[in-house]
Amino acid sequence: MPPRRTRLVTLTTDLGPVYSAQMKGVLCGYLPPSRIVDLDHELTPHGVREAAFLLLAMGRTFPPGTVHIAVVDPGVGGARVPLAIECHDGSLLVGPDNGILVPLAEALGLARAYRLDLTKIRGGSPASATFEGRDVFAPAAGMLATGHRIERLGSDHRPFRLPPWRVERVPNGIAAEVLHIDRFGDVITSAPSSAAGEPPREVEARFGRRRSLRLPVVRTYEDLAPGALGVLVSSFGTLEVSARERRASDLVGARVGDPVVIRPRSVADLGKRP
Amino acid sequence: MPPRRTRLVTLTTDLGPVYSAQMKGVLCGYLPPSRIVDLDHELTPHGVREAAFLLLAMGRTFPPGTVHIAVVDPGVGGARVPLAIECHDGSLLVGPDNGILVPLAEALGLARAYRLDLTKIRGGSPASATFEGRDVFAPAAGMLATGHRIERLGSDHRPFRLPPWRVERVPNGIAAEVLHIDRFGDVITSAPSSAAGEPPREVEARFGRRRSLRLPVVRTYEDLAPGALGVLVSSFGTLEVSARERRASDLVGARVGDPVVIRPRSVADLGKRP
Amino acid sequence: MPPRRTRLVTLTTDLGPVYSAQMKGVLCGYLPPSRIVDLDHELTPHGVREAAFLLLAMGRTFPPGTVHIAVVDPGVGGARVPLAIECHDGSLLVGPDNGILVPLAEALGLARAYRLDLTKIRGGSPASATFEGRDVFAPAAGMLATGHRIERLGSDHRPFRLPPWRVERVPNGIAAEVLHIDRFGDVITSAPSSAAGEPPREVEARFGRRRSLRLPVVRTYEDLAPGALGVLVSSFGTLEVSARERRASDLVGARVGDPVVIRPRSVADLGKRP
Repeated sequence: MPPRRTRLVTLTTDLGPVYSAQMKGVLCGYLPPSRIVDLDHELTPHGVREAAFLLLAMGRTFPPGTVHIAVVDPGVGGARVPLAIECHDGSLLVGPDNGILVPLAEALGLARAYRLDLTKIRGGSPASATFEGRDVFAPAAGMLATGHRIERLGSDHRPFRLPPWRVERVPNGIAAEVLHIDRFGDVITSAPSSAAGEPPREVEARFGRRRSLRLPVVRTYEDLAPGALGVLVSSFGTLEVSARERRASDLVGARVGDPVVIRPRSVADLGKRP
Repeated sequence: MPPRRTRLVTLTTDLGPVYSAQMKGVLCGYLPPSRIVDLDHELTPHGVREAAFLLLAMGRTFPPGTVHIAVVDPGVGGARVPLAIECHDGSLLVGPDNGILVPLAEALGLARAYRLDLTKIRGGSPASATFEGRDVFAPAAGMLATGHRIERLGSDHRPFRLPPWRVERVPNGIAAEVLHIDRFGDVITSAPSSAAGEPPREVEARFGRRRSLRLPVVRTYEDLAPGALGVLVSSFGTLEVSARERRASDLVGARVGDPVVIRPRSVADLGKRP
Repeated sequence: MPPRRTRLVTLTTDLGPVYSAQMKGVLCGYLPPSRIVDLDHELTPHGVREAAFLLLAMGRTFPPGTVHIAVVDPGVGGARVPLAIECHDGSLLVGPDNGILVPLAEALGLARAYRLDLTKIRGGSPASATFEGRDVFAPAAGMLATGHRIERLGSDHRPFRLPPWRVERVPNGIAAEVLHIDRFGDVITSAPSSAAGEPPREVEARFGRRRSLRLPVVRTYEDLAPGALGVLVSSFGTLEVSARERRASDLVGARVGDPVVIRPRSVADLGKRP
């Protein structure tokens, strides 16, 4: 009987190449590198909340049954638990119990979570207190990808949950937050596309205590004048504030975590100055 | 009969890890990740002309029959056409019709170009207006890599061509342009190696309206004094201006797209000040 | 008889994506991309000594028999020899003879070193004087990974060795050096963990001629107050100076290559000001 095909293993970290390469080296002791996919190793250092959002966006594009490792782990070596989650679609998630795994787990159907037992993974061998990605999560994922059963590697655990992305009704609008600033300086918010109004035409967007901006709602970047700011439905499904071939994040001074209020401007408002 | 081996798929983008990982996730729905090769996801944002040059350099090192995806796409979601090109060596190229694919296609032998038909690729499912890399080009490449015929995915199209790299005779020299500044600050120009004179010894190089520089022509970086500027034949085959273990681009103030004139200095000149 | 499985090939360079992609293209002419693993392409340009340390850390996590290519090569095209090393664990190392390969080779058991003969690798075809990674090391590794015998590709050679990492007894302490500053700003030194004293409690650390710092020795980052500096055993096994969720390298002003002296503070000292 041919051996059961090993699962895909994806890697999402804030570790950069030097540390993530060591995780790949360990994984290659369990499975061929042809089953490993690097997603992102350049996440904002220690940015667990942003990482949880990005892991959701990246991980959900992969086939069911994939093993996803995520390591943004300021609490490495400390009290936080090493976690593995089983999803209803057959995917398995491995990483620290700091909330990073949960949004993707819930999108794939969170079935059961386990606290990883180091003695099951490392025998008696000690793990570095500064790099559990290499010494705990990579071998755990290697075992899971090659047929070890998740319930043999740990015991039931109730995972830590981050506060949900902010989406709140406020008078005439939606209070949201900045979840990510992408490589182009586009400001990805948690506001649903409906926050742009119906039909979407123009909004007021206010980042923190900054001046309110009056922005057109457009479908594509090309619908903006060169350098001009506008609001679009991002590829994440939420609203983004962008500028055509410029960095909107610099223009509006937004940072990850900033609150933003978005108010559709009614047809009646459209002739007036804000 | 064993299934026909899927083609290699390469990825070249300005998208960074978050977006390119989503393209890889989609591709993994068509083919194993072992057939996907990341070339570059850190291209200059929106730098279509530089990307076309770099895709040519990277893509031509791959075996015939490879599927190359390239996404530097400021016009995403807009009027520009999604393109696929078939080459005489059997390679297939997929990306926006903004000129990025054409130099590589011509190097491999441009056989025929097609406007991709979204209904053939996505059925009725809509594509994000801000990320066709994930929603159009990745699935198109996935289909092409696994045996779908290119002529079934679109219809004949005459691809857009960027203006050719500048190489022009001027009195006693060659007018060229800066095509790329590499990770070391080496300034890669479009000037052919013959522009350095015969035998190559010393040139005058003038970037835009800056002061003319008198530079030795050398074979290796080691032939320069530490920190000193010189001209070499780059690994792209054209001339580069470099400094030994320093960033020539900073020393000469050159940027991608800058014009540069290169004049070989005759033996008679070599004793004189410029 | 089925063909012998090709070896894994890893890539460690300071070349960035544009050049490393060309090495991968060449390798794909010898073996499937599923056997290629990118370790790091963002090493400090020309930083041979740091690269040798990081290659050791990354390479040793890979299975025996792997082919490791390392290219940080300021002397490309010049007098330095192209090198291949055979290790007792069956691993093979390929790169310039500038010392980059030796620490990993010695960790895996340096069996024999060879000066690569270009005519065996390229026939009569010339190599770029600015990119031997693509034209020499990638094809050499491709041949070695697919069964060519190392002794057929070159002749015996005594490899160049860098000076060893600095670890020297000084009065009441250890003189070491900064080997690497990681993505988090953690300052990785060459000081062994024993330099922190027994039991490790508090040290004085002095970078170059800067003011001496009094730092607690802790086990995990979480044991530090937010932003506070401390000393830990790094995942490399040596001491690192870190700050909790801040960049220690900025706080202490350390750079790669800086000398550092570490002195354990005795129990008797602990009540006194330094």
